[in-house]
Amino acid sequence: MSAKNIPNRIILPESQVPQQWYNLRADMRTKPAPFLNPGTGEPMRAEELYPVFCEELVRQEMDDDTAFIDIPGEILDYYRTYRPAPLHRAYQLEKALGTPAKIYYKFEGNNTSGSHKLNSAIAQAYYAKQQGLRGITTETGAGQWGTALAMACTHFDLPLIVYMVKGSFTQKPYRRSVIQTFGARIVPSPSDTTDAGRGILEKMPDTSGSLGCAISEAVEKAVTTEGYRYVLGSVLNQVLLHQSVIGLEAKAAMESVDEYPDVVVGCAGGGSNLGGLIAPFMQDKLTGKANPRVVAVEPASCPSFTRGRFAYDFCDTAKITPMAKMYTLGSGFIPRANHAGGLRYHGMSPILSQLYHDGLMEAISCEQTKVFEAAALFSKAEGILPAPESAHAIRGAIDEALLCKESGEAKTILFGLTGTGYFDMSAYEQYLSGTMTDEIPTDEELRAFEA
Amino acid sequence: MSAKNIPNRIILPESQVPQQWYNLRADMRTKPAPFLNPGTGEPMRAEELYPVFCEELVRQEMDDDTAFIDIPGEILDYYRTYRPAPLHRAYQLEKALGTPAKIYYKFEGNNTSGSHKLNSAIAQAYYAKQQGLRGITTETGAGQWGTALAMACTHFDLPLIVYMVKGSFTQKPYRRSVIQTFGARIVPSPSDTTDAGRGILEKMPDTSGSLGCAISEAVEKAVTTEGYRYVLGSVLNQVLLHQSVIGLEAKAAMESVDEYPDVVVGCAGGGSNLGGLIAPFMQDKLTGKANPRVVAVEPASCPSFTRGRFAYDFCDTAKITPMAKMYTLGSGFIPRANHAGGLRYHGMSPILSQLYHDGLMEAISCEQTKVFEAAALFSKAEGILPAPESAHAIRGAIDEALLCKESGEAKTILFGLTGTGYFDMSAYEQYLSGTMTDEIPTDEELRAFEA
Repeated sequence: MSAKNIPNRIILPESQVPQQWYNLRADMRTKPAPFLNPGTGEPMRAEELYPVFCEELVRQEMDDDTAFIDIPGEILDYYRTYRPAPLHRAYQLEKALGTPAKIYYKFEGNNTSGSHKLNSAIAQAYYAKQQGLRGITTETGAGQWGTALAMACTHFDLPLIVYMVKGSFTQKPYRRSVIQTFGARIVPSPSDTTDAGRGILEKMPDTSGSLGCAISEAVEKAVTTEGYRYVLGSVLNQVLLHQSVIGLEAKAAMESVDEYPDVVVGCAGGGSNLGGLIAPFMQDKLTGKANPRVVAVEPASCPSFTRGRFAYDFCDTAKITPMAKMYTLGSGFIPRANHAGGLRYHGMSPILSQLYHDGLMEAISCEQTKVFEAAALFSKAEGILPAPESAHAIRGAIDEALLCKESGEAKTILFGLTGTGYFDMSAYEQYLSGTMTDEIPTDEELRAFEA
Repeated sequence: MSAKNIPNRIILPESQVPQQWYNLRADMRTKPAPFLNPGTGEPMRAEELYPVFCEELVRQEMDDDTAFIDIPGEILDYYRTYRPAPLHRAYQLEKALGTPAKIYYKFEGNNTSGSHKLNSAIAQAYYAKQQGLRGITTETGAGQWGTALAMACTHFDLPLIVYMVKGSFTQKPYRRSVIQTFGARIVPSPSDTTDAGRGILEKMPDTSGSLGCAISEAVEKAVTTEGYRYVLGSVLNQVLLHQSVIGLEAKAAMESVDEYPDVVVGCAGGGSNLGGLIAPFMQDKLTGKANPRVVAVEPASCPSFTRGRFAYDFCDTAKITPMAKMYTLGSGFIPRANHAGGLRYHGMSPILSQLYHDGLMEAISCEQTKVFEAAALFSKAEGILPAPESAHAIRGAIDEALLCKESGEAKTILFGLTGTGYFDMSAYEQYLSGTMTDEIPTDEELRAFEA
């Protein structure tokens, strides 16, 4: 009984691009813990954050009360060039699985940046421009955020310096070229352009870098360069705020065909996509309107939710950032080298960490061979080649659908397909050739990095 | 006076996926010339083509009369997973150019294959499956067709062997992996798996191959393998028929906002995208309903329209295919090694060749540095990184828009954006680093290959 009156793709009209972001914190009973100044142990005041972040973004970061925040016109104009993003009904995948479940996915890879990261990139670039900055810095690991921010900055004619994890810089030359095509300057990290980078190079001259280290460098560069600030593509409250457009559109699109998810599944690295996707559904949970399950899927090789501690920790390796209360594996943690794709951050969004801690969402971890198995199956069925990151959500959704097959339940599953895998073909090659391995950190290893 | 009531993207509802392909030949006064049997010099009969092509596709190939052909339900089901493709209004590009022209582009890169090729791939795979074939063969140059056909074949669980031009095979490992992810077998061409390949390897052991040579190999493999047939992604009448969905949707989308193009611009290699895009507009010209200009843009390094001869020629290098009457540079012609991207076929669709010969369309050629300049400008303005092939159409459209800027005319320009450039970053790197060159064949060189 596949309800064939529901189209394969539900694309809302342009008039339904959300006009406001939804700030999940306004409805949380327990708010996410504030940043702490590592020197004083006191909550950071806005003025202390202004040297690092754009002022308006600091206000958004610290606003636990305003439920809906107007999206400025120039950001809306840009959103309208690629949004609303489609909600797909995965008829082909359902058929391939033989499941009675109804599977929907919100696809955010339909723009050149190839991922959902553009939703926050354009907002952050806009506020930086509004503040009259000379430029901004950031870091990128797998490269999706760097690409998106480069696109956003070129739109506002704003200089951008991207510290790119050296391993990615070397292994993903094409990702690098895309970022450069959009006019950004790339520095492989660790580099000799910062104290943080030089310090790490001295200790580990052959390191291929890490996200935490690239963050240290980008932050240092921003605070030591006149007229520059630092921006970040995940983890922060402001990022989840901007990404709420994903969930708002997904919910509206489902409502347009009289559907509502029993379970919402998203991949989790720093939490940007997951926090955005679940926002309006979590609102329903928090306000008692509905009670969908919410499932985070993270890599077994970087299991911050499932094996981390809920504690204050640094956001970077060099320990120059404020401390955030989050599920963390320790700021020195780096996934093993065989880990492909993104989702390699040691910590997790403070908002999602609090929700998880409060029992409002679940989390599971998946081994990457299982994730790529799901990616290959999905790409053949649905004709979209997913990013390895996104494939974690696919794995989670497929497993839910297979449980439905066993139980005979026709659950409605929604998952977030955050982006495309065009720049991750070397990981696919590993998978196809059978050389991909699963190396899960031991308890002992994790203890060594504990916050 | 940018009519802001026209959205950035016009996406027709799923119910408006065309139910029929439009066969341009039905309205042509002078039909494209038939294939000739090179042995007898007589027009090929259907039965002579059956050993090479699927029977239903032969019927479509030879049908000069039926204007509209029903699209089978299974193909429609697949189309509905990614179609209607969006028609974009290029507000940002118009602004960047400061032109009074209204620029629209039909974007066909919104599926994992990354290009319009999927429109014909799914049709050809369907008919091959219907005929009960054991498998099919094809060739691919830049890789878009191979990717699309691999996706289509995996959907119908149909084995596929792709002869991939050796130069691309080596230079585009990720393109290769995508094709393999979709389950196809790839053979770098020339290879020792065919007489044609062995013959070429004997004469030129170090050759990086050519499209014409890969066609020879794929055809030979098909006719010498039990239960196999050969399929082709461009040039043929059947391919233009399938690709008519591009133009039909583009026209309907423009009509939905009360627009009609003054000029339609498309890139031209073998003619698949151009023929599909212009189909319903050319119908208007042929039936006297309207008279839009139609402009083909081809690479200066492979200028079949602008510097070729309109004559019977072989479709492949080893001269084992039927002869087609078309604009051709000679079946031995290979663009110089510095030519990036696709659009490297020596010939041109017989349909488009006839239309051009009859003065119903124009053609221009562009140097690749100019093409990449347009690609870079477009990607920054519109946020879509175009394939080098597609960028020829962008160049043509920009030049039309700049003429409008001079004349003050607010013309309506429609161009075809056939695909994304994610797998062409090495060409972008060349362009960005200033090492890209324009090497245009001399008259003497062209004479050496003449048909």
